Amino acid sequence: MNRVAVVSHSTTKFSLEDIPVEGLLVSAARPIFENTRNLSQNDVDVVLVSTNDNKKYLSAIVSELTGISPKISHSVESLCNSGANAVISAYSYIQAGLADVALVVGAERLDSPGQVLEWDVSRGELKHPIFWASMFAKAHKRKFGTTDEQLAYVSAKNHKNAKDNPNAYQPKEFSINDVMNSKKVTDDLRLLDCSRPCAGSAAVLLASEREAKKFSDTPVWISGVGQKTTSASFTKNDLTSIQSTVDAAEQAYRMAGIEPAQIDVAEVHDAFTICELMILEGLGIVPAGKAANYAIDLYNTGSRKINPRGGLIGSGHPLGATGIAQIAEIACQLEGGALRRQVNSAGIGLVHNMSAAATSSSVLVMNP
Amino acid sequence: MNRVAVVSHSTTKFSLEDIPVEGLLVSAARPIFENTRNLSQNDVDVVLVSTNDNKKYLSAIVSELTGISPKISHSVESLCNSGANAVISAYSYIQAGLADVALVVGAERLDSPGQVLEWDVSRGELKHPIFWASMFAKAHKRKFGTTDEQLAYVSAKNHKNAKDNPNAYQPKEFSINDVMNSKKVTDDLRLLDCSRPCAGSAAVLLASEREAKKFSDTPVWISGVGQKTTSASFTKNDLTSIQSTVDAAEQAYRMAGIEPAQIDVAEVHDAFTICELMILEGLGIVPAGKAANYAIDLYNTGSRKINPRGGLIGSGHPLGATGIAQIAEIACQLEGGALRRQVNSAGIGLVHNMSAAATSSSVLVMNP
Repeated sequence: MNRVAVVSHSTTKFSLEDIPVEGLLVSAARPIFENTRNLSQNDVDVVLVSTNDNKKYLSAIVSELTGISPKISHSVESLCNSGANAVISAYSYIQAGLADVALVVGAERLDSPGQVLEWDVSRGELKHPIFWASMFAKAHKRKFGTTDEQLAYVSAKNHKNAKDNPNAYQPKEFSINDVMNSKKVTDDLRLLDCSRPCAGSAAVLLASEREAKKFSDTPVWISGVGQKTTSASFTKNDLTSIQSTVDAAEQAYRMAGIEPAQIDVAEVHDAFTICELMILEGLGIVPAGKAANYAIDLYNTGSRKINPRGGLIGSGHPLGATGIAQIAEIACQLEGGALRRQVNSAGIGLVHNMSAAATSSSVLVMNP
Repeated sequence: MNRVAVVSHSTTKFSLEDIPVEGLLVSAARPIFENTRNLSQNDVDVVLVSTNDNKKYLSAIVSELTGISPKISHSVESLCNSGANAVISAYSYIQAGLADVALVVGAERLDSPGQVLEWDVSRGELKHPIFWASMFAKAHKRKFGTTDEQLAYVSAKNHKNAKDNPNAYQPKEFSINDVMNSKKVTDDLRLLDCSRPCAGSAAVLLASEREAKKFSDTPVWISGVGQKTTSASFTKNDLTSIQSTVDAAEQAYRMAGIEPAQIDVAEVHDAFTICELMILEGLGIVPAGKAANYAIDLYNTGSRKINPRGGLIGSGHPLGATGIAQIAEIACQLEGGALRRQVNSAGIGLVHNMSAAATSSSVLVMNP
């Protein structure tokens, strides 16, 4: 079996600027060529674009604009976890022997059409993800006694982590009180419980085992992948757990041969504070009902183990770029290059990227 | 190495009806479950959707509507060859060992945004594909003396073949004179030189070697795949040949271990009559400059070797469905189930699916 590594990565500054999607894509792709040893445009067999933008043929456009003439090239869309989907697709081309080197670029504009859940026409008017997150929060509070203050710790922690992430859209510290005093958006969630949609882009370069060392002395291997799409009508009558995450994690752990206790650093899809708690429980990093106190511990001890770059809440959430920025961060952590964000002795990393009211999850396990 | 087979397929009636894209997708996916031996929803590991529609999260939606809860699920877009891209991606998941069974569904509405080449903003105003096809036709006429009448044979042949395709949007025979007397759209192409965008959908079910026989006694193996994306600025100063097709075919032939002379039946991307000629030359089925007379021979002898279902010109061109309908047709031919369209002793089949002024081509070689 071919092993596949992340050998280079790049993330742009997330912002509220009005930039064409082609420009965003190129801003993340160009540094890959500037910063990767021995890489020329001719090496790249695959170019995949991850986005919710309505523009077509973007992988061919970014290929042309960066001088690549790939074999395999298309766009991938799965709302908020388009990024991990695209990376796992690129992984599979290399595993299958159809490619040695793949560039995956994700980008989203500020006005992305992916921010509205059009898909929900069949289930009433819950078109914005916050309505789903609020139902999760209400259920979690009822079952586990989770409090608004505990949720506030997640936001405060991720904003604090983002202060050391130069690409975060607004690296600013917020206290627990700041979060608690932010505007109530629904009965159960406040403004600072939410991630902020923004413009941004990110890219990763994957290589086969045969080619990895040509491009990097510190390749980061993808040792496990797992994915699951459920749907609202499939979930058990339990809004406190995320079945798609449980299933995706189980696949990824089995493939990597690890237990959740072995994870040293993780980027997880904290679209809302409540999501981070439910994800950590779904991933088995903490038992069900224990994530809230765990978040407080992380905050109080200054641990960067969960969402070291600040997650979606701290860094911003440019939909199609998010999963790729998460993978870039974990690769950076495992290379030991995360500077002030560096988690000590990070040996096993995890990425968790999720879509659409938690109906779809992708998990990657990575190691140096 | 895992082999991967097409074990089931389905194509809807192509039409000019105004149908929601979700409805189109389900119309192609449902018959797969009705018609495939031993198949249950739980078998399906991968659901990929091929479309240019702006709607998001369609693979999760079609999964929910058909009762599937897949591991891997997203949409694929690469304009007119989204379909072959999605099938080759599904192939790679199976090859990589991440999946055993994959459902790929393509659909397009009548008003698809993929019909306009937005990508061409950097190169002037040639926003409709016919302008590119006209440049190809002019160059081919100049270099090889190709005539309007020869082009008309391609259209007449494909319309004649489509008469036996119950899913063609308008199965009607046109004489050479009908084509020659149809409205001139540009200096070099007439209305009946063009394929017709329409609504439609198609689906194929892929399975690993381990699972294929469970679902079909006549699996059709994908023995070669090739893909290439060039760009307008990369092409040599020669508008009479399609570099992306030459490169994709070379990869697919090498992988399958065949020569073009061994191909018994092919569906090729005749978006315009001139494209069929250039593709047959690019695939090496005939030498450069010889495809025009070859088309006349096919017409006169009634051979169905090239575009037996009528191609895009005869069947219609629902963008995201086209590549999948082509693969369904070749699978059907190689199973011996094509009824009045059946090519005798079809042992090796080929699919050629192309995008955006011929800047991207995908080729599959298939055999029973």
